[in-house]
Amino acid sequence: MPDPILYIGNKNYSSWSFRPWIGMRMAGIAFEERLVPFDMGNGNPAFVKFSPTGKVPVLIDDGVTIWESLAILDHVSRANPASGLWPDDNARRSRAMAVSLEMISSFSALRSACPMNMRRPRAAIATTAAIDADAARIQSLWDECLAETGGPFLLGNFSIADAMYAPVVNRLDVYGFETTQASAGYMARMKALPAWQEWEAAGRAEPWIVEEDEA
Amino acid sequence: MPDPILYIGNKNYSSWSFRPWIGMRMAGIAFEERLVPFDMGNGNPAFVKFSPTGKVPVLIDDGVTIWESLAILDHVSRANPASGLWPDDNARRSRAMAVSLEMISSFSALRSACPMNMRRPRAAIATTAAIDADAARIQSLWDECLAETGGPFLLGNFSIADAMYAPVVNRLDVYGFETTQASAGYMARMKALPAWQEWEAAGRAEPWIVEEDEA
Ligand SMILES: N[C@@H](CCC(=O)N[C@@H](CS)C(=O)NCC(=O)O)C(=O)O
Ligand SMILES: N[C@@H](CCC(=O)N[C@@H](CS)C(=O)NCC(=O)O)C(=O)O
Repeated sequence: MPDPILYIGNKNYSSWSFRPWIGMRMAGIAFEERLVPFDMGNGNPAFVKFSPTGKVPVLIDDGVTIWESLAILDHVSRANPASGLWPDDNARRSRAMAVSLEMISSFSALRSACPMNMRRPRAAIATTAAIDADAARIQSLWDECLAETGGPFLLGNFSIADAMYAPVVNRLDVYGFETTQASAGYMARMKALPAWQEWEAAGRAEPWIVEEDEA
Repeated sequence: MPDPILYIGNKNYSSWSFRPWIGMRMAGIAFEERLVPFDMGNGNPAFVKFSPTGKVPVLIDDGVTIWESLAILDHVSRANPASGLWPDDNARRSRAMAVSLEMISSFSALRSACPMNMRRPRAAIATTAAIDADAARIQSLWDECLAETGGPFLLGNFSIADAMYAPVVNRLDVYGFETTQASAGYMARMKALPAWQEWEAAGRAEPWIVEEDEA
């Protein structure tokens, strides 16, 4: 069977693309990457050719189209049960799912004010109470997970939960948020991963500038 | 082991509470329901006593706290593998996850303009292009799933995907949206479920009025 195909947007800004990409890379799952750069702003009318929502990421595996970053990660985890992408322990797995879903359903203030940007030099921005509350909740979630499991990642070994928060690690970093000691350590470990470095270097080398993502 | 405890908000308006509740009821999973009505608007400061996000629903199972509606459903599905809450077929299961996640990440125009309301008499409202686009995408998703699987529910038998869309069935219904024939049939089948009827009757009988949810 051929490798699954992962469609992504660019690497500098496309936060949802980064999640399945880093998860699959960390798990050593082979895939064919198809990068389709944004055309205008964050979208590209060409996305509808392969994506039911007109958004990236999308995985095509053996003729089946899977959209939504977390659905892609769950799918490849089932196809590769030894990957450890979900924690083996049942309670940790439920916790990993809750943490991943809170990422998807929450933090809209931080997400809209502070787009992921691999190329951005670290510099603080003016924040609002809502942005600060998002940054604080994310860190209290991380700190609690790390304290409970002992780390080095949120649920112990690297899991889908870490893949889901990878873009937020970039955001808290490049927009100069204050971080707790435990969160700072977690962010440093994430940024040191070879898969992170590979993605970041590729993002930095990209030519495209998306004006509305340059906060 | 005692039954898991499901904390929910009220039944008339609390769309996220409805999802795990109808899923667990349909699967015949025993649980202790703890209804904590909203205090002001959609929240209740008392939620933080049991909920890490200050939101409902929350499941407490054998000392483990699980928040986020889809995480609760995934957790009880793993605890009850014979429940059929996720489709057995691998491609259908990936599709069910994608469809469920699109519900969580999307449709913000419809969700904010048309709150779930079990008690509302059916009456059309003035819509915007964004609301109409949400209603159209939801129906094209439903219609495609139903055509592919033959129904009667989105992935064949009732699954987590149907639980996730249950509140949207109410919305398209009570706010008088035009529906395709296939979607209308699906909505009628959902509303005829005994679990739906039980929730709806309880919601209608509740005394609480949340002003901002009376669109
Ligand atoms: N909930 C989706 C979000 C996907 C998403 O918003 N992708 C952005 C790029 S990071 C996109 O494709 N935007 C194009 C558009 O909105 O037109 C997921 O988890 O995959
Ligand atoms: N993403 C969450 C959403 C939960 C949610 O927003 N719940 C509402 C009631 S339906 C709530 O508790 N609101 C209280 C608040 O925001 O203060 C889930 O899927 O469970």
